Formats: sequence, C-alpha cells, structure tokens
Amino acid sequence: MVGIVMGSDSDLKVMQACADQLAELGIAYEMTVASAHRTPGRAVEYARTAQERGLKVIIAGAGWAAHLPGALAAHTTLPVIGVPISSSPLGGQDALYAIVQMPPGVPVATVGVDTAQNAAILAAEILALSDPGLSERLKQHRAAMAGKVATKAAQIEASDRS
Amino acid sequence: MVGIVMGSDSDLKVMQACADQLAELGIAYEMTVASAHRTPGRAVEYARTAQERGLKVIIAGAGWAAHLPGALAAHTTLPVIGVPISSSPLGGQDALYAIVQMPPGVPVATVGVDTAQNAAILAAEILALSDPGLSERLKQHRAAMAGKVATKAAQIEASDRS
Amino acid sequence: MVGIVMGSDSDLKVMQACADQLAELGIAYEMTVASAHRTPGRAVEYARTAQERGLKVIIAGAGWAAHLPGALAAHTTLPVIGVPISSSPLGGQDALYAIVQMPPGVPVATVGVDTAQNAAILAAEILALSDPGLSERLKQHRAAMAGKVATKAAQIEASDRS
Amino acid sequence: MVGIVMGSDSDLKVMQACADQLAELGIAYEMTVASAHRTPGRAVEYARTAQERGLKVIIAGAGWAAHLPGALAAHTTLPVIGVPISSSPLGGQDALYAIVQMPPGVPVATVGVDTAQNAAILAAEILALSDPGLSERLKQHRAAMAGKVATKAAQIEASDRS
Amino acid sequence: MVGIVMGSDSDLKVMQACADQLAELGIAYEMTVASAHRTPGRAVEYARTAQERGLKVIIAGAGWAAHLPGALAAHTTLPVIGVPISSSPLGGQDALYAIVQMPPGVPVATVGVDTAQNAAILAAEILALSDPGLSERLKQHRAAMAGKVATKAAQIEASDRS
Amino acid sequence: MVGIVMGSDSDLKVMQACADQLAELGIAYEMTVASAHRTPGRAVEYARTAQERGLKVIIAGAGWAAHLPGALAAHTTLPVIGVPISSSPLGGQDALYAIVQMPPGVPVATVGVDTAQNAAILAAEILALSDPGLSERLKQHRAAMAGKVATKAAQIEASDRS
Amino acid sequence: MVGIVMGSDSDLKVMQACADQLAELGIAYEMTVASAHRTPGRAVEYARTAQERGLKVIIAGAGWAAHLPGALAAHTTLPVIGVPISSSPLGGQDALYAIVQMPPGVPVATVGVDTAQNAAILAAEILALSDPGLSERLKQHRAAMAGKVATKAAQIEASDRS
Amino acid sequence: MVGIVMGSDSDLKVMQACADQLAELGIAYEMTVASAHRTPGRAVEYARTAQERGLKVIIAGAGWAAHLPGALAAHTTLPVIGVPISSSPLGGQDALYAIVQMPPGVPVATVGVDTAQNAAILAAEILALSDPGLSERLKQHRAAMAGKVATKAAQIEASDRS
Repeated sequence: MVGIVMGSDSDLKVMQACADQLAELGIAYEMTVASAHRTPGRAVEYARTAQERGLKVIIAGAGWAAHLPGALAAHTTLPVIGVPISSSPLGGQDALYAIVQMPPGVPVATVGVDTAQNAAILAAEILALSDPGLSERLKQHRAAMAGKVATKAAQIEASDRS
Repeated sequence: MVGIVMGSDSDLKVMQACADQLAELGIAYEMTVASAHRTPGRAVEYARTAQERGLKVIIAGAGWAAHLPGALAAHTTLPVIGVPISSSPLGGQDALYAIVQMPPGVPVATVGVDTAQNAAILAAEILALSDPGLSERLKQHRAAMAGKVATKAAQIEASDRS
Repeated sequence: MVGIVMGSDSDLKVMQACADQLAELGIAYEMTVASAHRTPGRAVEYARTAQERGLKVIIAGAGWAAHLPGALAAHTTLPVIGVPISSSPLGGQDALYAIVQMPPGVPVATVGVDTAQNAAILAAEILALSDPGLSERLKQHRAAMAGKVATKAAQIEASDRS
Repeated sequence: MVGIVMGSDSDLKVMQACADQLAELGIAYEMTVASAHRTPGRAVEYARTAQERGLKVIIAGAGWAAHLPGALAAHTTLPVIGVPISSSPLGGQDALYAIVQMPPGVPVATVGVDTAQNAAILAAEILALSDPGLSERLKQHRAAMAGKVATKAAQIEASDRS
Repeated sequence: MVGIVMGSDSDLKVMQACADQLAELGIAYEMTVASAHRTPGRAVEYARTAQERGLKVIIAGAGWAAHLPGALAAHTTLPVIGVPISSSPLGGQDALYAIVQMPPGVPVATVGVDTAQNAAILAAEILALSDPGLSERLKQHRAAMAGKVATKAAQIEASDRS
Repeated sequence: MVGIVMGSDSDLKVMQACADQLAELGIAYEMTVASAHRTPGRAVEYARTAQERGLKVIIAGAGWAAHLPGALAAHTTLPVIGVPISSSPLGGQDALYAIVQMPPGVPVATVGVDTAQNAAILAAEILALSDPGLSERLKQHRAAMAGKVATKAAQIEASDRS
Repeated sequence: MVGIVMGSDSDLKVMQACADQLAELGIAYEMTVASAHRTPGRAVEYARTAQERGLKVIIAGAGWAAHLPGALAAHTTLPVIGVPISSSPLGGQDALYAIVQMPPGVPVATVGVDTAQNAAILAAEILALSDPGLSERLKQHRAAMAGKVATKAAQIEASDRS
Repeated sequence: MVGIVMGSDSDLKVMQACADQLAELGIAYEMTVASAHRTPGRAVEYARTAQERGLKVIIAGAGWAAHLPGALAAHTTLPVIGVPISSSPLGGQDALYAIVQMPPGVPVATVGVDTAQNAAILAAEILALSDPGLSERLKQHRAAMAGKVATKAAQIEASDRS
C-alpha cells in the first residue's frame, strides 16, 4: 500500500498522474491532503502511524517552500518520495530545493518537478523488490514505453520531410 | 524574552551574532538547538509551549532545505523570524527559498542570508512596540550606526587619493 | 493600525489580498502608493511620521529592484514587512533579492513572492503580542485553515479514483 | 547488497561517506567506478546484471552533466539513488538538474548535493521494508541522531552567553 | 549525411527547424526518435553504427535531464551537436546544463536553448570543411541573412517615428 | 542626436518605447537594425562613424547572447547604453549577463530587462549635462511622474476597501 | 567632478580601482561613504546637492540589496552609475538585480559585478562629450589597452608549446 | 591546423589544457590573444583570414560577457568552438550564457565551463571526418580513457572498506 499526500488540494491536478500510474501497475494506494504548515499535527500523525497502518512507501507532493516530504520523513523510517510542484511564481525551483536539499540524516527521494508519474514508478521499483509479479509488470511497462518510442520513430522516419 | 533556535550546533558561528545583538540591546533570550528533521518532536514542543513560557518572538536559523523556521511557525502564532544559513554547496539560495517561500497561511519573517544580527534587530523592533525604553535604545542604535558611517566617510574623504 | 504601501498602483492586484486579510482579522489599516524612486520624499515622509501617526507595522509591496520596503525601514524603527512582487521579466527573483538581502543594521521582514496575505498574518502576529483578542482570532484563523484542509482531505479520500 | 557507483575516482571523497554509513548500518555493499561517458558499456553492463548479481539498490554519484544515475536507471528496474556532486565550476546545480529532472518514465531517487550519507540511509529505508532487524537499527540511528542534537542543545543552553 | 535524433516525438516542433535548415542548404539527413532512458539500447545502437552507415554529424535534441546528446557522444567519435529544449517547468536551464556540462573526455557541441536551426548551420560548417560547394552556399546564406537585416533596417529608418 | 540600434526588427516592440520617450523629451534620434552576428560589419561601421556623424549617445537593445551593445562599445568611446531583451527561453537573464558583465576596459551602461524607456531617460540625463533646457525638461518629467503617483495614491486612499 | 559613493567602507577595496582609473584619466573626483539604509538622509543630501556642488556624474558601489545607486538616482537627474559588489553569500547576483532592475522612470547605468574600473571609464565617456581633451585621452587609453593585448599575444605566439 | 584564441592572457591557465590535448592527438595549432572588446579589429581580422591561412577550426575561450567566440563566428563560416571561463564573480554562468545563447543564424559550438580539453577533442572529432589516422587516434584516446577508469575501478573494488 502506497500513501499519496499532497500539501494542498490544488496539487491534485499534478498528483493525480501518480495515482493513475500506481493503479495501472496494480498497486493499492490511498490519497489525502495534509499541510506541513496548516495541519502539521495531521501530517505528523500520518507519518507516525504509516508503518502500522500497512503503508510501505509515502509519496508527498508540494509546492513553494515544500516542507511536506521532509516533515513526513522526519516521523517515519519508511522511504518518502518527494514531488516538487511548480505552483509558485518561482516556477518549482523553490519546491525542488526545499525537498531535495535535506540535511544529513533524513533523506527524501526526490523526483523531477511536476513528475508525479515518476514518483509512482519509483515506488513500484521499491515495492517490486519483494513482489516478483510487480517486478514483471514494471519490466513490461518499460517494454511498452520502448515500443511507443519505436512507433513514433517509425512514423517520423517514414514521413518525407526534405 | 526571545527564543533563538538553530537547526544544528554548526550554525552557532552564524547565530551567535544574533545573541550578541540582543544582549547589546538589553533583550533577554534563550538559545538552543532543535532540528526540524532529526528532532521534530523537540521543535514542535518548543514552538507549542513558547507562548506560555513567556517567549514573544522566535528566531530560527537553518541551512540546506531549511524547514525549521516554518516548522516552528506551524505550531505557534508568535512571530517567527527566519535566518537562511549558507552552509550547503548551493550557497544559501536553497535555505532562502525553503524559508521565505512559505505558502499562504503561515508566514515566516525572513531576513538576508547569514544576517543573524538583523534578526535580532527585527525582534527588537517588534518588542519595542510595547517597550518605550527599547524603542529609545533602537533609535540610539540607529544613530550610532549612522555615526560610524559618518566617521568612516570622514576618513575616506580626508585621505588624499588622487 | 497597519500601513500598506505599494510602489505602483499596478501592484494593487497583489496587495489587495493583504488588505482583505487584515480586514477579516479586524485590524484597521490604511493603504497608499509611494514609489521609492519616483516619489522618494513621499516614501521617506510616510516612514518618518508613521509612529507618531499611530502606525504599528508597515507592509510594503514592490516589484523589480524593489527598494520600497528597505527605504521605509531606513526611516523608522517600526517593523517593516516586505512583499516581493513578480512583475518584472525576471519573475520576482529580482524583487526577492532586493527586499530580503538587506545589509546588516536595517532588517526587512520578508515574506514569499506575491504572498501579500501572509504579510497581513505576520502583521497580525506582531500586533497580537499586546492584543489578546487578536491573538485569539489568529488562533481561530489557524483552526479554520486546518478545518478547510480536513474537508478537502475528506473529499479526496472519499472519491474512488483507482 | 547495495551497489555504489561513481562517475570518477575523484568522487570518492564524497562517496566514501555513503559506504561508511552503509557499513555502520550493517549493510553489505560493493563499490566501483563507471563513467556514463568514458565507459558507457561498463555502466550499462553493471545495471543490466545488477539484479541477477543480487543487488537490491544502486547508489550512483556524479558531478557535471551527471548522467550516470539516469544511465543506470535506464537499464534496470531496481531503485537507483542519485547523488549530485559539486565538482564543477557551477557548484552542483548542474549535477542536481542532470540527475533529478529525469523525464517521465524512468525516475532517479535524488538526494541533496554531496549528501552521500543520505543516499545510504535512503537505501537502508528501502531494504528495511523486508528486513525487520535493519528497520530496528534505522530507528536506533534516528534516536542516536536525536540524542546528539539534545546533547548539543544542552551544551548551548548551559553556556552563559548574555 | 546528418542524423537528427530527438528524445521524444514532442520535441519535433522544435527540431523540425533543424531539418528544414539542412534541406535548404542541400544537406541530406535522416530523422528519428531515440530516448536515452526509455530506449537506451536504440540510442546506443544508433551512435555505434553511425559512422559505418555514413553519418558524418549527429544532432540530438532533448529536454529535462537531457542525456541523449551525451549518451550518443559516448558511443561514437563523430561530432555530436546538442540542442537543449525548454520543455520542462525549469524552462530549458536543466536541459542546457545536462547537455553542455559534459565532463572532461567526451564533448557535446552545444547550441542555444531551442535553437535547432543553429544546430543545422553548425553541422553545415563542419561538413563544408570538405565540401567547397556547401562552403559557398553557407556564405550565401550568411549574405542573405545580412541582406534581410539591411532590408529591415531600411524599413525602420524610413518610417517617421518622432 | 541619439542612435538607437536593435539586434533584430523583432526587438522593435520593446525599443519603440525608447524612441517615444526621447521624442517626448524633445531629443532627436535615429533608429536602425544591426546585428552583431549577422551584420557585424554594419554594426562596426555604425559605431566607428557615430561620433563624426554627430551622435552623442548610442542605445542598443538585444536579446539572447546579446553582444550588440558591447560590440558597438568596442568601436567607439561614446557612451553606449544597453537594453537586455527577454526574447529567449531563458527570459532575459542571458541577455542581462551578456550585456552587463563587460570585462574591464570597455563598459556598457546597462538598464533593466526590457526597460527601453529607462535607456532614453539615461541618455537624456547624459545629454542634459550640456543642455540646460533638457535638464529642466527632465526635472519636469520627474515632477510629472511624482504627480501621477500622488494621483493614484489619492484614488487608493479614497476608496473604502475595508 | 565625479562623486564616488560607497555603501560601506568595506567596499573600498573594490571601489579604489574606480578612483585610480579616474585619476589616471585626469578626472577630478571626491569619494565618500553613505549608506542608503544606515544614513539615508546623508545619501539623499548628497544626491540633492550634487548638481549645485558641481558634480557631473555620480558613481555608487554597493553590495547585498544594493539600494544606494537607485536611492541617489531618485534625488538627482545627473547620470548615476551603479557598481554591484559581490560581498554577500549570494555572490553579487543580489546586488546586480537590486541595481540594474530599476523600474521605469529612474534609470541607473549599471556595470559588471565588481568592475569599478569600468564605472570610471563610463563616467569619462560621459564627461568627454564636452571635453575634447578627455575624449583624446580615452582614445589613447583604448589604444594602450589594445597595445597590451598585442604584447601578450606576441608572447604567447612566440612560446613554443607544442 | 586549429586556431586557439583567448580573450585575455589570464585565460591561459585554462586554455593551456586545450593546446596540450591537441598536441597529444598530433594536431597542429597556433595560439594567441585577441579581445572582442579591447582589440575588436584584431579579432575580426583573425576570423576573416582564418580560412585562407589554412585554419579548419577555431577554439575561443573567454570569461565574463564572453563575446569572443560569437564575434569570431560572425566573421567566418569555419566551425567555432567556445569555452566559457569561470573568471568573473558570477562563476562562469555569465560566460556560458554569453557564448551558448547565440541567436538564430550564427552558432557557436559550446563546451562546458572551463573544459578546454573537451574543446580540443571536439575539434579533433571534426578534423577526423577527413583524416582517418586522427580518427584512429581518437578511438585509441577513448580506449585509453576507458582503461584508466577500469584501473581506478579495480583499485577501489580491491580496497576493503567495510
């Protein structure tokens, strides 16, 4: 079971891709909102009880001074994956720095700005270490991606452009 | 009473200037270490009990993905002043973004990178609103700064450089 | 009484949120325009007379090389809160640097780019130090924010997305 | 078993902290050098055979246009952790972007610039999902970190600075 | 013969200008898609066989953590020209760093963000070293560009604006 | 007489404000296009003959790797004012650096990104040193700007917003 | 007469090169310290009386949120040249933005970070418009620079390096 | 024959690596100094006569607002390789932007900041298109680099670190 948390419901338009990708890979998840600043107790509680509630990985998306992933990581030793979201006027660089630059001791596994789908795939790679079926599905997903690229390549090669 | 908190004891070399400035202005303070990530409970507890312990303003200095000021602000309605510290390879821009770019609802009063002295003066300006003596000392401090500039100016003007 | 000053009337679309938040918290304010560069005397006069006119906190919003908050701070020992506005082609990073990086001696309490609402809350936190009723309203405001997050969380948790 | 790979032997002074942290947590590892550009075949081979050789997690550190973590990730569905190294004149921002901004489909779990120790802890968190003993050691490591902060805090609180 | 490769078919809207410019200069080219991450084997194969298939120059365009140009360069000693594409929320600076900051040993000839036309001209300059006719056409192209500027200049000079 | 030069006719939409401001201040000007890269001889010739043709100040606007202002400055000892234009995907920071960071020996007087009007005012300030009438008009222009701010201020002060 | 003003006496190590260059070109100058924030009245007074005291150009150097050049420019219509100084942890980019990004209406002629010598040359170019002797000396200075480059070139060409 | 040009003799400490690498690959070169700003005529002349003097490729290194590579490219249709040098307080990002962001029409083949060796290898790749012997030496150079990495890898693998 993967927990998806976002700092604001306005982040849902980015984070939905994470849920969709998990679903496509057959991974159960739950999704909620918890702000590191407006509902810090809620965020702490979520992280503290995550392991006993059966979560294996937490994915947290946030924009601005995006403390949510790190705040969750501070209260659990489960792997926490952070998704910086480009919702501020500084375009996501603020969220990236606030998530990835965790000081020594408490890491957050950070993916690219707004790439919520990649957070799902990373969670799948982690879960697949003890789930051979999922490992197989991940390899098929890779093959499917490669197939799509090959199809597009064939289309572009076939079109006479000169 | 002002509370000074830093994310790591290695931040003391920057934050000591804050304590020194408060002392010079005759403002009582306490100083401690509390990491938003390594000791989150400690940080939360500090902020939650700050008002009842008689603190009026909290000054928090941190480097890297500097969540400490925001984490404290999330648990108190006292004013929290944040000091970004340039301790990471990204030179303080990461700490600045992680402190100043707080999302709507929970502000942190941010000062310049490594300017712990300014955090003290800002705290004094806040406390002076209900302390006429401190207000007077602040004005004298301003006058003294201006005097020092005038002295330096006179020295430079007097030296024949051409 | 809080004074809101903006460097150009085009900043009103950002700064109105500041006035609205102050009004919601029951804090009296005045609002005007004063450019640090086009009407420097006006800005100086505003800051110099602020205390005797009964202002407790000044909030200043500006874009570009945003000198207004610092220029006001140079002429008063009242706390000055700065709001960087993202009106230039450099997207607010110029205003952020020009406001937050005040050199030692004269601080500006800086909030996030375009977060005028947070400037109002920070002003309220400062005023609440000697106004128990406002302190109470601030705590209710926090609780209301938390409540809204909880509602959104419940909606997202309830929707079947998989 | 964790595989540590670095793009150049000059990265060892950063990456050694990763090995040390793994050793402290009782996690077996191997360490080698493989450049994405100078020995691409070696890097590909390493990633392709990683799973069958019994690796569970790969940690890759690199500076400059740091392709190594992504290049490994492209050839395995094991989790790959990337450590940006600040070895170029651009101070690590180039390596950070080149590692974290992986396009949709192939994630790299990125940690902060030069924080090789955090890569080790993240690897431990992943391995601990199926290793209760390691999970316990991680919690002890957290507690030990918190203890060190408390000790430092007590020292700073005890010193009379005013 | 020039090979144009792009990391995703969505890059075609930028890279088409490269093909058009090559065609205009009478240079044969082929164009395809190969992702450094989703189809790494395809990319490697492309580069490895490029010389024997008669390619002289490879032009590679990619966005995000744009490894494609470097990945191709790692498998050929043909000149590889890289075009950073501004497709991520970080606006092309990530792609620029990931392409231009190649570590010592394996260079990529980088042109400006989204300037696929310039990649074509650079390829032409390289091919013209052993093709006097192309060298002549390049000089005519330069003269034509200068002529267009002169025409525009005359129009602006002629319009009475004061 | 002021010479306005732009690197491309597409820069006219920014540079027209420069011409308009000069006209408003009663300053004669000429305007043309000369690319530092596509018509370097034209740019050199323009700068070399500027003084003998009666120009006093040259204003040059350009985007991207904006060499035009520096290229003109290299061929004249007249003051050259540079206007960085935000026409590239990097949003004007590239043009700003390429114009302002002139190495020791050959300065360019740089104004803000896209602020062509300010280039005109700076040119006027320079010309006013030997033109008392223009000096007077500049002071009136300042007074008129201040008057406009006062009017806007009065409007905002008068509106009841609370 | 040129006025050199710096925001702090610690800026003298950069600004001395400005005075030296003016002296070498035979231009009279005065030099002083005036902080836009610690002695704003002094800075205003300096700018307001500059013209009547016979100044033709003002050169202002400052670091951090470098308001001094703009603050002076707000109180005079003399040309003001700004020198950003790299004295903060952000390495001069803060000072550059705070000086060059002046909003429409009040320009500052900005030169490169720490290039105080260029500020002197720019001032000389402005003064030379009405001083043929200085114009001649500037041309000789240019020729001397070119001569030095030629000498260095000859040395490098002569050394057998292969 | 390759021409190496640098904007200042102080750039020699970076550019020497370029000459050394060319020599190692058996490629004849000449090396000189020509400033785009202090000796623009010299730079133009160098580029204009390059082809007739037998040059095939020009390598230009420069710091600050590094116009030299583009200025040379504007006067020749030979390939020009640009090396950004980190000599300014902005650490090479200014030089990188000023070199790589060439506007449409006149490309510069840019390599990483301070990577003069890579400029030499890129020049060799271009020359090798019509020089089978050089092509062979380049492949040997690649193999030697790979060999060195393998040696380093063996050393690190052999050392017992746990």
